[in-house]
Amino acid sequence: MPAATASPPAATVVVDTGHTRYDIRIGEGLLDEPASWQGLPRAARALIVSNTAVAPLYAARLRTALGGAYAAVGLIELPDGEAHKDWPALNLIFDRLLADGADRDTVLFALGGGVVGDICGFAAACWMRGVPFVQVPTTLLAQVDSSVGGKTAINHPGGKNMIGAFWQPARVVCDLSTLATLPDRELRAGLAEVIKYGPIADAAFLDWIEANLDALLARDPAALAHAVRRSCEIKAAVVGQDEREAGLRAILNFGHTFGHAIEAGLGFGTWLHGEAVGCGMVLAAALSQRLGLVDAAFAARIERLVARARLPVQAPDLGPPDRWLELMRVDKKAQAGQIRFVLIDAPGHALLRPAPDDAVRAVLAAHTAPAA
Amino acid sequence: MPAATASPPAATVVVDTGHTRYDIRIGEGLLDEPASWQGLPRAARALIVSNTAVAPLYAARLRTALGGAYAAVGLIELPDGEAHKDWPALNLIFDRLLADGADRDTVLFALGGGVVGDICGFAAACWMRGVPFVQVPTTLLAQVDSSVGGKTAINHPGGKNMIGAFWQPARVVCDLSTLATLPDRELRAGLAEVIKYGPIADAAFLDWIEANLDALLARDPAALAHAVRRSCEIKAAVVGQDEREAGLRAILNFGHTFGHAIEAGLGFGTWLHGEAVGCGMVLAAALSQRLGLVDAAFAARIERLVARARLPVQAPDLGPPDRWLELMRVDKKAQAGQIRFVLIDAPGHALLRPAPDDAVRAVLAAHTAPAA
Repeated sequence: MPAATASPPAATVVVDTGHTRYDIRIGEGLLDEPASWQGLPRAARALIVSNTAVAPLYAARLRTALGGAYAAVGLIELPDGEAHKDWPALNLIFDRLLADGADRDTVLFALGGGVVGDICGFAAACWMRGVPFVQVPTTLLAQVDSSVGGKTAINHPGGKNMIGAFWQPARVVCDLSTLATLPDRELRAGLAEVIKYGPIADAAFLDWIEANLDALLARDPAALAHAVRRSCEIKAAVVGQDEREAGLRAILNFGHTFGHAIEAGLGFGTWLHGEAVGCGMVLAAALSQRLGLVDAAFAARIERLVARARLPVQAPDLGPPDRWLELMRVDKKAQAGQIRFVLIDAPGHALLRPAPDDAVRAVLAAHTAPAA
Repeated sequence: MPAATASPPAATVVVDTGHTRYDIRIGEGLLDEPASWQGLPRAARALIVSNTAVAPLYAARLRTALGGAYAAVGLIELPDGEAHKDWPALNLIFDRLLADGADRDTVLFALGGGVVGDICGFAAACWMRGVPFVQVPTTLLAQVDSSVGGKTAINHPGGKNMIGAFWQPARVVCDLSTLATLPDRELRAGLAEVIKYGPIADAAFLDWIEANLDALLARDPAALAHAVRRSCEIKAAVVGQDEREAGLRAILNFGHTFGHAIEAGLGFGTWLHGEAVGCGMVLAAALSQRLGLVDAAFAARIERLVARARLPVQAPDLGPPDRWLELMRVDKKAQAGQIRFVLIDAPGHALLRPAPDDAVRAVLAAHTAPAA
């Protein structure tokens, strides 16, 4: 599947959890196509939840496209960034819904990246105990990962995504043309989640990413289309088997245990989520090697790929190593105070297991940049 | 079923929504019985969520009873009252869970009345996207109504229970002996929800309540036991048919459309929820009469029963009648801006329908106490 320069036709990936089923629609220009918005829950009112960076670019177009389906289409612009994935921002949505007289049939549309999608989804889960919502991801990270699978949340100052709900969207609409306006730093952050799917689930996709990383960084439309589609296929398959993360779904958190500690430890928004995950994958691969699950060549391969995506491969200085352990013990995968890591034991295969604190300390010591 | 003075044996009512099933256990002294707490989700850690009024009375006993099942049993005391059914109180629970290093297996226990149960249940629904919780209601209102059925929420300043989740408890344990410490005002507030079940679902139970109201007010154990059990049976049957209030479940909101407007309009906590519901039932019965659904004798019968329970039968002055309509349009049952009321068309049978604004204004004009 070498990258070509022509845009491929639109594709649909289906998520089926057993009790709910919805489409992920992937293609260029879907935002403006009326068909993208047909067959959604009927309602008098829709509210687009976006942020101050994305709304000026796309909200008017989405509003126009939704005008045929809803009598009233509102827009709320949240402050931008992970630092605002919190209760005050969530409450802005509730205040607006109340002021609008929004009823139980109101449909929310999350227009933006992962922060907007997570917070809008959680608002939909809680407003009047649950209203439908649609994901309209405009970042690579949101298109390949966070918009799919129904994980919604806000952060607690002490822990990432600690307060949230499983609440599936009614649809995910990935308009690939929105990636054209994505800042380079956000594109690279999104690549971290694309890279993730290779080591955990698909060795051939890992090979493909290595072969096509330059095309992805250059925003080659066909390469991006394939990356989004294959990532969504893998995520849909995993979520379909384990919606509520009883087991398998945890593998999607490769790199995230270290990554969440970085985000919380530096303060949310200092590093982008994808940057923290990129670095976290390097650390998790090194930990896999230290525990004898993979060889040094594989750990080096992951580090090289993350570095080629211009994502950090050195962990930030969060203070003494035990500060890392303390932050990671808050992770949702921890059990009875024991941190559980997503580790790789073969290219394309992950597992969840605890690791000795000493092994974690050693990996951190080998990968931590000196304080500036 | 005339009231007797001997305590009846413990009873179990089962709630079965199709995808979840749990016991409501009702009896004297259940708090201290180890059997009450057997068979719950296993975990290393439990957290009792209570308030400053209830915790001093019962938390130590519950802690002792739970000690056999959980290695660590924490306690958090929230501020008391409907005015604190809000985000700051909810966040106290999250802060505590984070400080304790609570993981996804932590079980929460809601020890208290409706406010504690609603807020603890919502915390359980959101913490790490969902942990199990157990309802241990210590007020009549919570035992007969709010602890059963999985409705959890906090208030928005502009609307009752606007932010919440459907999240079923793993069990409900109603220790009838805790009603002994209930202030009279709270007992009467609880009777409002008992009375509710007669008009909406069970004409014979309405007769029984009329015959036994004095015994209930005098806290006759057998009368209270029967009231709790029959109320739970009716609620379990309704919730079993319609967990997420697609239709039938709305009848449990008899008196609540007016009642929620009273609570929000006066400020949460000014009237107890049950007081607002008592008055709301009088108004809803009068509206049923005005729309020709029941005769004047039935409306008078409801008003007489509410008055005998020493609950308010005159609506408070919330300003002009349109302030009432404005507050009620926020109600979760409203659809496309149209308020829908739970009305009675025969003793033991309710229906959900809109009413002309003029009829609502007329009912309010006839039942509003002049401003003090």
